[in-house]
Amino acid sequence: MLRYLCGVDIGATNITVSIADINGFRSRVLQLTNRIGDELTVPKQVISLITICCERGGVDLSDIERIGISSAGPFRRIDGMIELESPNICGGLSGVEGRLPNDWRRIPLERYLEDRLPPLKIANDAVSGAKAERMFGAGKGVNNLVYVTWSTGIGTGAYVDGHLISGKNGNAPHGGHIHLLDGGARCGCGERGHLEGLSSGMAIGRSYGGGSTAEDVFRMYRRGDPEAVEIVHDAARHFGRGLASINALLDTELFMIGGSVFQNNADILLPLIKKEMEGSFSVLSDGVEIVPAVLGRYLGDIAGLSLVMDEDWIEAWAEKEPWVQGVETVIIE
Amino acid sequence: MLRYLCGVDIGATNITVSIADINGFRSRVLQLTNRIGDELTVPKQVISLITICCERGGVDLSDIERIGISSAGPFRRIDGMIELESPNICGGLSGVEGRLPNDWRRIPLERYLEDRLPPLKIANDAVSGAKAERMFGAGKGVNNLVYVTWSTGIGTGAYVDGHLISGKNGNAPHGGHIHLLDGGARCGCGERGHLEGLSSGMAIGRSYGGGSTAEDVFRMYRRGDPEAVEIVHDAARHFGRGLASINALLDTELFMIGGSVFQNNADILLPLIKKEMEGSFSVLSDGVEIVPAVLGRYLGDIAGLSLVMDEDWIEAWAEKEPWVQGVETVIIE
Repeated sequence: MLRYLCGVDIGATNITVSIADINGFRSRVLQLTNRIGDELTVPKQVISLITICCERGGVDLSDIERIGISSAGPFRRIDGMIELESPNICGGLSGVEGRLPNDWRRIPLERYLEDRLPPLKIANDAVSGAKAERMFGAGKGVNNLVYVTWSTGIGTGAYVDGHLISGKNGNAPHGGHIHLLDGGARCGCGERGHLEGLSSGMAIGRSYGGGSTAEDVFRMYRRGDPEAVEIVHDAARHFGRGLASINALLDTELFMIGGSVFQNNADILLPLIKKEMEGSFSVLSDGVEIVPAVLGRYLGDIAGLSLVMDEDWIEAWAEKEPWVQGVETVIIE
Repeated sequence: MLRYLCGVDIGATNITVSIADINGFRSRVLQLTNRIGDELTVPKQVISLITICCERGGVDLSDIERIGISSAGPFRRIDGMIELESPNICGGLSGVEGRLPNDWRRIPLERYLEDRLPPLKIANDAVSGAKAERMFGAGKGVNNLVYVTWSTGIGTGAYVDGHLISGKNGNAPHGGHIHLLDGGARCGCGERGHLEGLSSGMAIGRSYGGGSTAEDVFRMYRRGDPEAVEIVHDAARHFGRGLASINALLDTELFMIGGSVFQNNADILLPLIKKEMEGSFSVLSDGVEIVPAVLGRYLGDIAGLSLVMDEDWIEAWAEKEPWVQGVETVIIE
């Protein structure tokens, strides 16, 4: 009998669920993250999507061995259970009135799910992203590495001395909230001068104004619009300085960069951030590599699954690379 | 027969060597760090001080089992051997012509010493400081902690998930060189806006000008001198923001602060940095404790020794606390 695992990716924009067996993905569903309702809205949505994904894959929920959940953070451990306290999902934490359509301050994610689902593990999405990229992607065999997702927000996950670091609440290394400036643009968390507030996709769009998205700004950049050029160069400069600070603290060998902002614009961004890193204190930065992450659009799914995979499964997937073929994704309205 | 260990502390200002047995310290010598000569000046000085310390303690060099060396960084591992590349010792790295009386770019510390001495281990001074404070001091039993030395420079060492982090060259977490400002005062490494360049003892003295030391500035602070007050408040604010960034990346439980600048002025500095930490993104900073380190003037010695101590020795020292009674320190001219 085949064994099944489930991978969940909770982002501020989308939630993705996939069911997999040792041969590859069986089914995959995606839905916009519902941020309207009470504090259980997101956990209930996760259960609903897992149920739909099981139906699509022809798998009984009770036949799923384990569930790995990769989620935007930060977290707080309450009595050992992970609560979600993300300013990009919880309106009560964002520090800016009316930015999100709810006033949540915490989501009791683990407590609600663990009573209702097969055994599960939860980790920060960039932490599990680092795990997935080290298992199957750009970081194979590297003992000191950092995965950075450069997307709507900015998240980081890291191995140091071969150990996937977690910290007291599972938030290490929460690179989006390091200080780079005294003052500067406001971050989603309400503070000014954070890496995420200066360089994230949201920050890039907002800098241009007029309801622009990061995608709009990069389109204008490619047309030579001087304001877009300045905004992108500033964002890349702060991002590179952020990497230099993260490297100072983690003494890493390799940065793997993923996330939509980077993936769609690596041709522009990679040379800019490499230049910034090369210009920083050379005793620390010499020889540090910066490369694109390689698992692409399935990284979130594999990140979740990587939390609960056995050795035999890891070997099989490393050989078959099921993310290359992929799977039909059903978008749930 | 008694077993002997030797602890060495290499700082930019002083080198200290102590010989110890399971009952406590036997002898201790201290000399200003010699920064004049060729690249072997410091390793040769270490050997000379170990020899003198052995004589003083009535111990034969060949009877020393192991040597633990706690040194200012950063390091670079060349063929597995640690080289010292500290801009506070190596004039060729400082980025400011004539700041130091030599043009060294690297000191082949481990390679030179390992052929000439009993078996030895080398670690960054704040990393081994974290180890010592967790073994015997303010961090007993804590799995996520950061030791920060606030002295001529600023150094950091950390346990994450119960593991003393090291990184590819043994530099993690090199907190003195994280960016806090775009621009600002120049750090010893030549870059601007680093924590060490903004808040170290050297930075505090230099901000006041006229060849002042940090000690001078704190004396003026206590007399109510408005410029000294502003300089100290700025340094403390940046230091607190630095701790918040380090906490964002390491998700720690406890900061233990030592070093001469802090130890002599904890009454002024501790409230200021606590206030800064409390004002930062609360989901990450809530519940993080900031306390003074407790091993005081023997921290460097114990840091070195902690690298090479056995379990039985650790238990004996934890009980006897030989640093309380101390030992006569012979100052070598």
